[in-house]
Amino acid sequence: MKELLKKGDRIILFVMDGLGGLPKDGKTELEFAKTPNLNKLTEKSVLGMLEPISSGITPGSGPAHLSLFGYDPLKYNIGRGILEALGVNVGVKKGEVAIRGNFCRIDENGVVVDRRAGRISTEESTELVKKLSENIKEIEGVKINFYPGKEHRFVIVLSGEGISDRLKETDPQKEGYKPHLPEPLEKNAGLTSKALTKMLDEAKKILKDEKANFILMRGYAKPPEIEPFPDKFGLKSLGLAYYPMYRGLAKLVGMDVIPDLKSFEEAIEVLKEKHKEYDFVYLHFKETDKAGEDGNFEKKVKEIERVDKYIPEILECDFQVIAITGDHSTPWKLKSHSWHPCPLLLHSEYAGVDEAKRFTEKEALKGYIGRIRAYELIPLLLANAKRLLKYGA
Amino acid sequence: MKELLKKGDRIILFVMDGLGGLPKDGKTELEFAKTPNLNKLTEKSVLGMLEPISSGITPGSGPAHLSLFGYDPLKYNIGRGILEALGVNVGVKKGEVAIRGNFCRIDENGVVVDRRAGRISTEESTELVKKLSENIKEIEGVKINFYPGKEHRFVIVLSGEGISDRLKETDPQKEGYKPHLPEPLEKNAGLTSKALTKMLDEAKKILKDEKANFILMRGYAKPPEIEPFPDKFGLKSLGLAYYPMYRGLAKLVGMDVIPDLKSFEEAIEVLKEKHKEYDFVYLHFKETDKAGEDGNFEKKVKEIERVDKYIPEILECDFQVIAITGDHSTPWKLKSHSWHPCPLLLHSEYAGVDEAKRFTEKEALKGYIGRIRAYELIPLLLANAKRLLKYGA
Repeated sequence: MKELLKKGDRIILFVMDGLGGLPKDGKTELEFAKTPNLNKLTEKSVLGMLEPISSGITPGSGPAHLSLFGYDPLKYNIGRGILEALGVNVGVKKGEVAIRGNFCRIDENGVVVDRRAGRISTEESTELVKKLSENIKEIEGVKINFYPGKEHRFVIVLSGEGISDRLKETDPQKEGYKPHLPEPLEKNAGLTSKALTKMLDEAKKILKDEKANFILMRGYAKPPEIEPFPDKFGLKSLGLAYYPMYRGLAKLVGMDVIPDLKSFEEAIEVLKEKHKEYDFVYLHFKETDKAGEDGNFEKKVKEIERVDKYIPEILECDFQVIAITGDHSTPWKLKSHSWHPCPLLLHSEYAGVDEAKRFTEKEALKGYIGRIRAYELIPLLLANAKRLLKYGA
Repeated sequence: MKELLKKGDRIILFVMDGLGGLPKDGKTELEFAKTPNLNKLTEKSVLGMLEPISSGITPGSGPAHLSLFGYDPLKYNIGRGILEALGVNVGVKKGEVAIRGNFCRIDENGVVVDRRAGRISTEESTELVKKLSENIKEIEGVKINFYPGKEHRFVIVLSGEGISDRLKETDPQKEGYKPHLPEPLEKNAGLTSKALTKMLDEAKKILKDEKANFILMRGYAKPPEIEPFPDKFGLKSLGLAYYPMYRGLAKLVGMDVIPDLKSFEEAIEVLKEKHKEYDFVYLHFKETDKAGEDGNFEKKVKEIERVDKYIPEILECDFQVIAITGDHSTPWKLKSHSWHPCPLLLHSEYAGVDEAKRFTEKEALKGYIGRIRAYELIPLLLANAKRLLKYGA
């Protein structure tokens, strides 16, 4: 694709997290919502359905976003540890290893009796992380950094020469068992295994009088080796997300990000201020997904209606190519991410023609774009922005 | 696929070049056109959308046709030189190398001052090609043939033992620079490089008093190594195209062709005469693409209406399987090939069912076939012609 890139128009990709839904009393969240601004835009746009991964596959936020950003999610993988780190606003550099940590409780024989140590509060957990940080800094030449997370969760980042992410997870996954040792799963993992084994001994001493008296580790991961989005697609890119994980995902693929966004409203303000400096803006809205996860149909409807009010402000930024979609569906009925394809709206002077009248799942079935894989979207946006040369003579 | 082939019904693939369009005042070229015959046929047919290459990718005529002929266009490639040769009716055999030549103007220091020598006329250019042909026939055992093209363009075909197409293009792509030398880009390209370097010295002498006093070379290419269409799909095949490039493409994949066709009307006459001798006929209509390239909505509409008048004559030939589509879209609004999928009409006794009423982009969205890649079409036509055995027991 790279040899086809040229300069062209400006693009915005607006992602309403978990957008796609399922009907309640005959109407989906999108169908029930009053969306005058989206309706008006739909009349001048074409629709389609985006399949995040492949038929029947429910994605996590990582693969779902990689796919939206134009990377085949079956080829590239973001490790659990990296996602955890992104979620608490911790960057992980090339060569570093991120690990998801859990505070747990073990008995006098070292057997795990509570994998989450009674879901200790974020405050307690943050205190424990502080203790670990003060006492453990470097073992066997491997630098070890601890970062607090939510409740019993935290993040460990390793850095140093020759470290590996190919180690056995220590979480036994069930209570009543001893934690595993972080045994090396490849030849070169010896050093990391040794450092982490010693680190666990240290942690056991440091935590011995706490309710949460030990830690479990899983999801060892290095950052994925991917070509940065701005290079891959020739787009100076800005990621506007007020949730750390999505900001982290944008940063991971090399977009510029704004560190301190606190809300969608703030993201819209920055959009209006900065958009002209960029070829491509990724704008993220989180609350549709949260309402879906809560199984709250009415809340999801309200959040869609809340977004609708900002559509005019987004349109005023005068992007020639506008895509609105979700990273995946989160139907209220499932209370979780799902495999359902997500409605897509595409607006540009050259988008095509169809008879879809509203931005809903049903109308999207009439859409010009048909059903495509999410990672096929970016090339389509580039085409509409006249940023692609002809392939072959 | 080959092990599934059997004898069956007869197929015609009618390609209206650049068929797909975009709306003007709410209607696309196909929607605006009055097409009573196509309408009638559509009622007894099913529709679909053909994607030439992949999402967002705009194809040149070469890859677009390879795809229509059932070859994955990302796997097979037709070089620029080969297409240029086909376009001026010059066949290129296995082992030969075709090159696109440009007459240019250089100053006394050898710097290119006009890459097209003021777009000299076809007559002038043909004269210069004659001069080159008379004076240069063979260098270092490499046979060199020159063929005139349009305006400043011409074609060079090399033949001989051990020649290569892996050489540096000499066109500097910008004025103000000296041409590059045709340096070898692979080990075995030394001989060809030497022959072409000497050829350039000769050409400089021969052209020194002309306005167009030098030549630039690019698109060195051997014919692609592909299995001939008649063998691959078990079809005795005829290509009916009155534009040299499309006739050349048909010939390239091993179809029989009629050398001297001058118009679509002539092609129809030959069709009526010869169709019974063939399992498969590829019929090409060019003017829809030309009108699109000119940005002329009304002309494209007229050309579609012109084609419509010949539909009864095509139907009279009594092919059991009829496919009508484009190789790609050429919307009037873009004045160029585009990435948009192309409407497809399929008529056979076993084609399927849908509610599409007219052969247009919008109606095609309702089509039974859905959206498929162009290279998936031939197997579908073979199936409708009952030319494919069951796969597996």
